[in-house]
Parts: sequence; C-alpha cells; structure tokens
Amino acid sequence: VSHLSSLLLHWLRELKSTHEHRQLIHSIKVGLALVLVSLLYLLDPLFEQVGDNAMWAIMTVVVVFELYAGATLGKGLNRGIGTIVGGALGCSAAILAQNFGKIGKASCIGVSVFIFGAAATYTRMVPRIKKRYDYGALIFILTFNLVVVSGVRADKVIELARDRLSTIGMGFAVCVSTSLLIFPVWASDELHSSTASKFSKLACSIEGGLEEYFKGIEEKEDNQSETSFNACKSVIHSKSTDESLVNFARWEPWHGKFGFKYPWNKYLQIGDSLSVLAASILSLKGCLQSHRQPTPVLTRQSIKKPCEAVVSLLACTLRELGDSIINMKRCSPAVLTEAKLQLSKLELSEAILPYMLRTLPEDDAFAMAGFVFLLMEMVDMVEKLAKEVEE
Amino acid sequence: VSHLSSLLLHWLRELKSTHEHRQLIHSIKVGLALVLVSLLYLLDPLFEQVGDNAMWAIMTVVVVFELYAGATLGKGLNRGIGTIVGGALGCSAAILAQNFGKIGKASCIGVSVFIFGAAATYTRMVPRIKKRYDYGALIFILTFNLVVVSGVRADKVIELARDRLSTIGMGFAVCVSTSLLIFPVWASDELHSSTASKFSKLACSIEGGLEEYFKGIEEKEDNQSETSFNACKSVIHSKSTDESLVNFARWEPWHGKFGFKYPWNKYLQIGDSLSVLAASILSLKGCLQSHRQPTPVLTRQSIKKPCEAVVSLLACTLRELGDSIINMKRCSPAVLTEAKLQLSKLELSEAILPYMLRTLPEDDAFAMAGFVFLLMEMVDMVEKLAKEVEE
Repeated sequence: VSHLSSLLLHWLRELKSTHEHRQLIHSIKVGLALVLVSLLYLLDPLFEQVGDNAMWAIMTVVVVFELYAGATLGKGLNRGIGTIVGGALGCSAAILAQNFGKIGKASCIGVSVFIFGAAATYTRMVPRIKKRYDYGALIFILTFNLVVVSGVRADKVIELARDRLSTIGMGFAVCVSTSLLIFPVWASDELHSSTASKFSKLACSIEGGLEEYFKGIEEKEDNQSETSFNACKSVIHSKSTDESLVNFARWEPWHGKFGFKYPWNKYLQIGDSLSVLAASILSLKGCLQSHRQPTPVLTRQSIKKPCEAVVSLLACTLRELGDSIINMKRCSPAVLTEAKLQLSKLELSEAILPYMLRTLPEDDAFAMAGFVFLLMEMVDMVEKLAKEVEE
Repeated sequence: VSHLSSLLLHWLRELKSTHEHRQLIHSIKVGLALVLVSLLYLLDPLFEQVGDNAMWAIMTVVVVFELYAGATLGKGLNRGIGTIVGGALGCSAAILAQNFGKIGKASCIGVSVFIFGAAATYTRMVPRIKKRYDYGALIFILTFNLVVVSGVRADKVIELARDRLSTIGMGFAVCVSTSLLIFPVWASDELHSSTASKFSKLACSIEGGLEEYFKGIEEKEDNQSETSFNACKSVIHSKSTDESLVNFARWEPWHGKFGFKYPWNKYLQIGDSLSVLAASILSLKGCLQSHRQPTPVLTRQSIKKPCEAVVSLLACTLRELGDSIINMKRCSPAVLTEAKLQLSKLELSEAILPYMLRTLPEDDAFAMAGFVFLLMEMVDMVEKLAKEVEE
C-alpha cells in the first residue's frame, strides 16, 4: 500500500507540474464516482437490496461520465430513455412470445430482434438523430435485446427490467451529482471562451502577417509565421469541436450567466463567419509570402503607413468584439463608428495607390491584392458586428 | 405477424426509393448479427454452455458493430484488449485483497478502484491515446471495476473473468464475420473516393465562380453560387471526417487495391493542401462578388479571355489529379508540363494587365486581385502534384 501511495504522490506531483488541472480534477471525480458506486457491492446492506444488478450501476458510471457536465447529462438521459423504451418494448415482445409453443416462441423472438435491431440501426444513421440521440438508440437496441432474449429463460422479465432500470438510475444519480456538484466543467463556458479567443487569435495573425511583410525577407522568422498560420487553421477547423460543444451545452441546466433558451446557434454562426474570415487571412498570408512580391524593402515601405493603419484598426475591432463576447455586453457604438471611419480612411489610401501603380512596376499589384482582401475582411467584420448586436 | 411483415415490406419499399442502399444493408447486417448472437440464448445446447454470460456477447455486438469495417475491427480489438488487461489486473487486485480482513478488503478494493479509475481516465485524455485507444481504456476501467468488485462476493473470480472473455470473443467473431464477409463497407474506399471527389468539387467551384462573374450582375443565379460556396466549405471542414476515416482505415486488413502499410497519412496531407486551396477559392469568390467590382459588363469582358484560359486549365489539372487518385496511377507527365506551360501563359496575361491598369480606373485592380489568387493556386497545385507523384 505504501508503495502504491508513493506512486500516487509521484503521479500527482507530475501532473501539477504540467498544469493540466482540469483533466486532473476530472480524473479524480471519475475515481470518486466509481468508489461511490462500488459501495453498492462493498456494503452488505446495500448489496442485499440490489444484488448482482449493481453491475449496471457501475457500467452506467463508467460509460456515462464525461468531461463536460452537459455531455454527462445528455448521455445519462439518453441512457435512461433508451432503457425505458427498450425495456418496455422488450417486455411486451417477450410476453407476446409466451403465447406460442417452444419453436414459435424462439422464432418470434428472433424476428423481433431482427426487425427492431435493423430499424433502430437505420434510425441511428439519420443525421438529426445521430447528432443528439445516437447513444439513446444504441442503448435501446441493447436493452430490447437483453430483455426480450432473457424472456425465454427468466419468467420474471418485468422485475428484471425494473431492477436494472433502478440500478441504472442509481449510477446516473452518482454521475450527475459528482459531475455537477464538484468543480463542474461546463461545455457552455468552454464554448464561450473559445469563441472569444478566436477573435484575438485572428487579430494576432493579421498583425503578424503584415509585420513580417514589412520587415523584409532577411529578418523573416519562419517560426512565428508558422504559429500564426496554425492559429488560422485551428479557427477554420474548429467547426466540429464547436458543434459538439453546442450539443453538450444544450443539455446543461441554467447556470452562471447562461439562461434557458440561450441562443447557442449564434455561436455556430459566429464560428462560421470567423472561419470565412480566417480563410481570407490565410490566403492573404499566402499572397504576402509569395515570391512575386517586390523584394526591395523600400518598395514595401512605401505602402506601409496606410496598410498598418488599416490592420491595426482591424485587429483592434476584432479584439473589442472578443471582449464584448466575454463580458456579454454590446460593444460600445464607438467601435462601430470607428469601423466606418476606417472604411473611409481605406478609401483614401486607395486613392494613393493608383498613383503608385503608375510609378511602380506591376509587382506592386500583388501588394494591392493584400489590400483588397483586408477590405473584404472589413466588410465581413461589419456583418459580424451586426450579429453581435443581436445577441 | 402478418401485420408486422407488411410493415416491414412497406418500410423496405420506402428505403429503396431513397436509394440509401448502403445504410439499408448495414441495418440488415446488424439485425442479422443480433439474431445470430441471440441464438446463444435461444438454442438450448448453446445456452447450457455459456449461461447468463451470453449477455456479454449481445452487448459486444450492439456496441462494437459500426458502419465501416475498420471501425468495427478497431473497436472490437480495443474491447478485447481492454477486457484482457482489465480482467487480469482486476483478478490480481481481488486476489491481493483476499489476504486482508473484511474491512481491510473493502478499503483495499475501494482504493484500487479509485487509483485505476482515475489513472485510466487521465490516460484517456492524452490526445494520442484518445484518438485510437479511447474505447479500449473505457472497457479497461469497466472490466477492472466489475472484476475487482465481484471479487468480494464471488469466489471464482478467474472463472468469471474467463467466461465473460470467451463470450465477448464470440460476440466479436459474429461482428467481424458479418461485417467483413457480407457486403463490407471499407473506410479506406470511402476515404479514397471522397479525396478524389474533392478535386472535382473544387474544379467546379472555380469555374462556377468565374463564369458567374463574366455573366454580369443581372443574370446572377444565387442558387448556383450558393452550392459551389458550400462545396468549398465542405472541403474545408472535412478534416475531422477524414481523420476518423484514416483512423478506421488503419485497422482494416489488406483488401482490394490497398496493401499493408499503405500511406494513409498522405490523404491527410492532401486534404490539408486542398483545404488551403479551398480557402483561397472562397476568398477569390468573395472578391469577385464584391460590390466594388466594375459593373459594366464590357469592362469585365475585356479581361475575360486570359482569365478563362487559366481557369479552364486549372480546373482541368484538378480533374486530372482527381482521376489519377481514383485510378491510383501517376498522372501523365503531360499534365505537369501543361501546368508549367500555363504558368508562362499567365505571365503573358500579366503583361496585358498593366496596360489595362493604365487605361481603366482602379476598380480593375480588384479583378487583378482575382488573378493573383489564381496564381497562388497554381503554385499550390504544383506542390500537390509533387506530392501525388510520391504516392
């Protein structure tokens, strides 16, 4: 035991040093829930009540407990509903089968297993159901089969089903209380902060791209550009993560700053526009890093001022928007008007460019392409602002 | 029964009409596997052999059977390994606990449940393990708990574990034979064809975007542009689907055109470059649809010829590449040289543009931005070609 505990301590120390506190806490919570549910076996008075069905409680805890509170709740409810529906249908099928002779009974059960199994599997593949009720359908198939098939052997099908359901209920109760009461991890919080952080990520990568461009080729730091490139890509590819977070968040009860009927879909919409914006930043970067750009730093410097003004305002607006999401209040109208001001400023800089076009070779046209895209982004931004205000 | 069968017939007819043959076949396969595994309960001689443990076989079939053959195999192997490791450790812990008194035994079991539960949960969250062995770790926790905890009650822990393992093995055998022998659905085929179809999707959407641009505003069909927009987005967002397909494909045995050690990661790389390309097409489209583009059709028409030549060759190259992936042979060197030829052609058209810049207002600069991006895409393309050739 002392060896084990020293191992545990060592392990704990290692975890502390990596600062993965959330995952550590989650692991401890799971361990705790498992111990709690094992008490059904370990304590004699409890075991006399539930018997071997305690197994189902353990199974429920292991399978249902997830990192996010919403995921745990959703899976637990799915499991409960699937068990009830599957159990009820299984009981009726088993009772129906009792009326036949030995062979008739077996074939009746076989046919019902086939039909319900195939139908439920088909239902699972409907995208809408797959998204939210996949696990429930799985449990439905499982329970239905177990109940209908043990109907051949056991006479007391209904008691069997009831006992299992009650132990599953116990397991679920242990899960939910551990998950919600001890340092809950809310999917909604995660979604909220990850959406807000995307804004600042994009702001950084716009700035980074432009800064690098004006630094000239000699001082290029590949490392930094790589990270901002990856930041853009992560924003683009975050869609499936966001979708599952929204899914979990829907199951979560009222807590903190989020009320019932909170518009979770707004997050997906914002995420979508952000990914379009990230796509255009990505191609802007590609354009700036192209070997067709004018190499002399002086040529680049000539358009530095208007570019930097626009970019810094873009980044500023993005950050402001991210902050307004974090604080959950509308962003000050100053930001909106500022964006418009900036649009006119851009128009001004456009007026300078044609002059440059006439004096510089066509290489400069590429730098101009950068401008066009910044412009497009501005338009994007204003759209998103409008969405924010709705919130 | 006649009512049920008519219902089934109706259901089958409905499915046929929707042409979702693959999903239908999968559902039937699952139903079949369930019936097969239920025979363990239904047939007396078999039931005498396995007893109530037949439950575990049913559970295995329900949980492990997935649409793709690779997913079924991977889950089944994970389940098997998780059960063996969990069972072995659980047995040892239970035997160790036998040496203590009543209280000592219970607390020893509680502690081991906590430690192994928490440690395995923590391991599950390591990204590398989560990707491929998540399910195995889950089953490990489950088996360990069940075995160690029933060690308090049942004396024959080892027999219990052995019987369960053998029924799980039976369930797995039923799954694998149904999944692999009857119309198998290979994740590798799916990955292969989806990657190839991405090329043609992108080709269509480049062409569509440009065509629309030259048609002028009056004839704009929002519908068509919306679909090609969505095609681009689906290519961008396909990353997580691709990753799971690659994951499944890794589990799949040698079959058809794919050998062992097939370079599945190449598909992810190609998918990545395609998503960057899609991102730039997306922003190209945004640029072409901007309200800042010159409205007179005549102005647009003036640059039509070089644009169309480039775009049609781009699309052609993309399609050629997609075909070469489908047929699994290197694309003809003609395509490669053609691409280079095209590059020089583009250079030519660039020579025309500066002249236009001098005669047209700066609105035309936007059209030019489109060019820059097509150019970038060309560069992208050539990179991808190089990758293809490696294959």
